[in-house]
Amino acid sequence: MTNMNATHERRREALRQRLRDEGLDALLVSHAANRYYLSGFELHDSQCNESAGWLVVAANGRDKLLTDPRYEDAAKRVFPAEDVFIYAGRKFDQVGPFLKGLGIGSFGFEPKAMHLYDYEKLREYVELAPTENLVEDLRVIKDEEEIKRMKAACALNHRVFRALEDSLRPGQTEEEVAWNAERMFREWGASGLSFSTIVGVGPNAALPHAIPGNKALKENELVLIDMGCRLNDYCSDQTRTFWIGENVSERFRSVREMVKTAQQKAIEIIKPGLPLAEAYKAARDFFEEQDVADRFTHGIGHGIGLETHEAPSLSSIASGVLRPGMVVTVEPGLYWPDWGGVRWEFEVLVTEDGCEVL
Amino acid sequence: MTNMNATHERRREALRQRLRDEGLDALLVSHAANRYYLSGFELHDSQCNESAGWLVVAANGRDKLLTDPRYEDAAKRVFPAEDVFIYAGRKFDQVGPFLKGLGIGSFGFEPKAMHLYDYEKLREYVELAPTENLVEDLRVIKDEEEIKRMKAACALNHRVFRALEDSLRPGQTEEEVAWNAERMFREWGASGLSFSTIVGVGPNAALPHAIPGNKALKENELVLIDMGCRLNDYCSDQTRTFWIGENVSERFRSVREMVKTAQQKAIEIIKPGLPLAEAYKAARDFFEEQDVADRFTHGIGHGIGLETHEAPSLSSIASGVLRPGMVVTVEPGLYWPDWGGVRWEFEVLVTEDGCEVL
Repeated sequence: MTNMNATHERRREALRQRLRDEGLDALLVSHAANRYYLSGFELHDSQCNESAGWLVVAANGRDKLLTDPRYEDAAKRVFPAEDVFIYAGRKFDQVGPFLKGLGIGSFGFEPKAMHLYDYEKLREYVELAPTENLVEDLRVIKDEEEIKRMKAACALNHRVFRALEDSLRPGQTEEEVAWNAERMFREWGASGLSFSTIVGVGPNAALPHAIPGNKALKENELVLIDMGCRLNDYCSDQTRTFWIGENVSERFRSVREMVKTAQQKAIEIIKPGLPLAEAYKAARDFFEEQDVADRFTHGIGHGIGLETHEAPSLSSIASGVLRPGMVVTVEPGLYWPDWGGVRWEFEVLVTEDGCEVL
Repeated sequence: MTNMNATHERRREALRQRLRDEGLDALLVSHAANRYYLSGFELHDSQCNESAGWLVVAANGRDKLLTDPRYEDAAKRVFPAEDVFIYAGRKFDQVGPFLKGLGIGSFGFEPKAMHLYDYEKLREYVELAPTENLVEDLRVIKDEEEIKRMKAACALNHRVFRALEDSLRPGQTEEEVAWNAERMFREWGASGLSFSTIVGVGPNAALPHAIPGNKALKENELVLIDMGCRLNDYCSDQTRTFWIGENVSERFRSVREMVKTAQQKAIEIIKPGLPLAEAYKAARDFFEEQDVADRFTHGIGHGIGLETHEAPSLSSIASGVLRPGMVVTVEPGLYWPDWGGVRWEFEVLVTEDGCEVL
């Protein structure tokens, strides 16, 4: 048992309230991040392969954790042994009767995290009812423990960016820069990256998801680096764009200035109650004034937490409003395929009366 | 276009033959390794997150590759631009009509690799028919190109094991040893690990999936290391068990001898036509003679290729026979929870008249 138990029990109780509101007897949680959020049960191994199993959160409070022998120890660290069910061999022959034996009328389940094969097998034994975002809606508001971890992941990102910026040299390839960053993240405590590092030299910086390749850093050229880590299971995500050499070009300076100003305009208005599309609009309006809006080709940000991309999305078509406890990225960018691009990304916590840049 | 195109076309033609045999007009391939096997389309990013999209292999030969803008470049490297469909935004609103427009009667699909949500969305547009192992059955026999890559991945594994063995020192933690191995794999060309490295000191070696922790190597104790990499998209997987220090204990020596003899007994009989359960039985019979069979707690091996664990399984309950071109692990082990364990693992290619240890 960990001392996180009270936190997980509080989260499960919030879910039970939603189950009662929706008339469901239980939720069969298969989405790994949701399962972890509600139980602390291992999210993934060091290769970011998801762990296996289901968490049953029951309206009557008799929750169960089902997994295979590889994760038995991990399961029993977070759940009493009598509530852990270990299956091996033909798993549905064991899991099916076990779930049926719980005497639960109808199990809500997560259609975006259940393969059709599993669904067909399980419904031979129990009644399954599709649900949508029951746990994701809770995860959107970060609690104190989560904010602490996200600040730590973000601080590690800052630390690696400082060391990486100092180490950039003409001749290093994008690949080498990406590996240097990853090595620092890992050696300084991260369990892994939160996404594949993007390193784009010159025109490559204009590709939204450039895969680091053999292209080398060059004096008097820009490099865009978008990277993040996973520390204590929470993700970080930041982008910076650097100039290699002392003679920073006027064009780079002015594009970076516009991007940072647009970012500032968005951050200035972020507070509880702001419609999600407004942050995007603040940056976009500024870019329109500067006559470069057509070079801003993506949304301005996304929620981040146990997953690198999670709710809410801050795009032009997003509905809903910001609420205290949300953590979002703010990452305007301007791109010219022939020249390159500049993106600048912060993570921002929505507070009671405004926001805090992490 | 890569020079692998002919290979992929040959594999797709073999699949088309199976589609005709089963009376299907097409297969909608969503399993990432299957998609890659048939097209060369990017398997995953450097964080081992699967790429996104579907491959349509049509009995009439008019194949299509569907993906999102992140993978557009990768898709067009392996497929003619006119056969690549890029979706963005609300993907099913675009993918559904596109598939419908192909005029294909019924799409086979992979129930173990399709979420219920996607299934419900797609079947608003097209007819979907469940299939089983259509591509996996092809993948079980490795072709020349695959064997070349698997030998390279296995050779890198040997190289890292040699360097790692030389570097083992009392005081290093399991975690440090695992990271040293991973760093070597990556710096010597691997895109990542094929699974999370297992490093178990002393009694930890008896846990089948020990997560490397703070426990340190110690003079006169054993350490079990099970590790593998992904090189050119193919996996390696090997286990060795070392003794720390010069004074190898008699018990360790004798257990290692039994394990290596059992492995040899299995390898000696591996050839085309051998029932899958027989390799297991050869090792088990030897352990029974030695009166330690109750300490052999897992199967003797598994197929390996684009995935670390794939068909065929070499367990006591496996059915089917070995065929030329299969690559399997042979990894007997003996475990005592209070003392530790020894496992020794080779990868073996089934040849026309026997087998070859990689």
